[in-house]
Amino acid sequence: LQILRKDVQNALRRRDPGPIRELVVKCISAGADAIDINSGPLNRNPESDMQFLVDAVQSVTDCQILLDTTNAKAMRAGLNACKNRPVINGVSLERAKLDQMLPLAAEFDADLIGYLLDAGSQVPTTEAESIDIAISLFNAVEAAGVAGNRLIIDPIVVPLMWQTGTQHNMAILSVIQNLPDVLGFSVRTIAGVSNLTTGNFPQRKKLMIEAAYLPMLAAAGLDMALLNIFHKETVQLAKACSVILQPTPFSWAALE
Amino acid sequence: LQILRKDVQNALRRRDPGPIRELVVKCISAGADAIDINSGPLNRNPESDMQFLVDAVQSVTDCQILLDTTNAKAMRAGLNACKNRPVINGVSLERAKLDQMLPLAAEFDADLIGYLLDAGSQVPTTEAESIDIAISLFNAVEAAGVAGNRLIIDPIVVPLMWQTGTQHNMAILSVIQNLPDVLGFSVRTIAGVSNLTTGNFPQRKKLMIEAAYLPMLAAAGLDMALLNIFHKETVQLAKACSVILQPTPFSWAALE
Repeated sequence: LQILRKDVQNALRRRDPGPIRELVVKCISAGADAIDINSGPLNRNPESDMQFLVDAVQSVTDCQILLDTTNAKAMRAGLNACKNRPVINGVSLERAKLDQMLPLAAEFDADLIGYLLDAGSQVPTTEAESIDIAISLFNAVEAAGVAGNRLIIDPIVVPLMWQTGTQHNMAILSVIQNLPDVLGFSVRTIAGVSNLTTGNFPQRKKLMIEAAYLPMLAAAGLDMALLNIFHKETVQLAKACSVILQPTPFSWAALE
Repeated sequence: LQILRKDVQNALRRRDPGPIRELVVKCISAGADAIDINSGPLNRNPESDMQFLVDAVQSVTDCQILLDTTNAKAMRAGLNACKNRPVINGVSLERAKLDQMLPLAAEFDADLIGYLLDAGSQVPTTEAESIDIAISLFNAVEAAGVAGNRLIIDPIVVPLMWQTGTQHNMAILSVIQNLPDVLGFSVRTIAGVSNLTTGNFPQRKKLMIEAAYLPMLAAAGLDMALLNIFHKETVQLAKACSVILQPTPFSWAALE
């Protein structure tokens, strides 16, 4: 639920839950397991804006909600509004963010996405550095009184066009694979797949490359993927990954 | 080049290279980097049959040829006929096969596919067993005077429908990833992807699941995949894997 979408923006301004409900219902029926509310730069009424958005989503689904804001007041309002356990999206080692968000995570016993970015919010350059950051995040989370297993790690997919893009995006497969051993429990992981193809390329090529990367992430053990749920082929491929990785008597049936 | 295809069979019987040339040209233009000649149960004239097939292929392409026969005479004829370095496809720890094929590999300095099957040609049940078999194969190859880096390992994809299908097919990703460390050089690997979906399922579901598995194999480090080159989506996805894993200035351009 991206505030940059005009329909979401207008619905928010008019306090009309209709278009948001419609969009969420479309997402859920397309296969979404959770909804990310990116409330953008909430201006005059960050708290009531976020509460309105959460209420609108919850009026049509019980699915998990990711609260995607850097505004601590909006985050608190969202956490208060959520009926089920929400996800704070998110923190990095940036001190200000940790100081604002960790107490909220503790107070609401919320899940919490931790980005593997350094204290200056830069992408690390080696696998070892990513692992070190994950350990630091885990320690910060526990020190703030948040249960360690509330942490969901985002290892940061970067554009392939970056000079180190291939190297980094391969390294994070190894990070995802090794994190449970490093942290000592089956820590959950999340990744934003579309970041891979940032740049001026034809949409069909972008989708093909994202489709190739998704199974690599899945095989490494990724738990959650942020993706455009209306790209039907990508969603089908995600389901096909499940047929391979977590087959059930009905998993083939879920394929179209 | 599957002898069970009626057109190949008839061409062979009539010693008419036309239909074979046509098929090979179609394979190459669809993106094939090598052609597997599965000559089936060659009856009266195994040697001249194989020579005819190799000649027919070589009359239209310089690509590498996999000689896929258990008949040692046909294999020798094929090796003799190949202008470029051929691939013997293949051996397992089965003693009879090793005794027949290893001397041929040594004599012709051919590449050689080694299947990770036990001495009774059964699929191993653990990753450790697969690794042990790879080491035994490597030792047998070197003992026969074949250069170790001529070996191409096939870790054996099994049908997902097998009781241990998921476990085994995930284990071989790890096998592919670890083999270079175990053997001490960047040993090449090959896999037959379509084996994954053996069973009575709709073709589009099979292709979707194969499409999900191919990037997993690629990320693990697989070098060669045996697949139906006429499944355009699968070939495109293989190219998309290259964009991620081995990008070149032109790799995006190779996508359609």
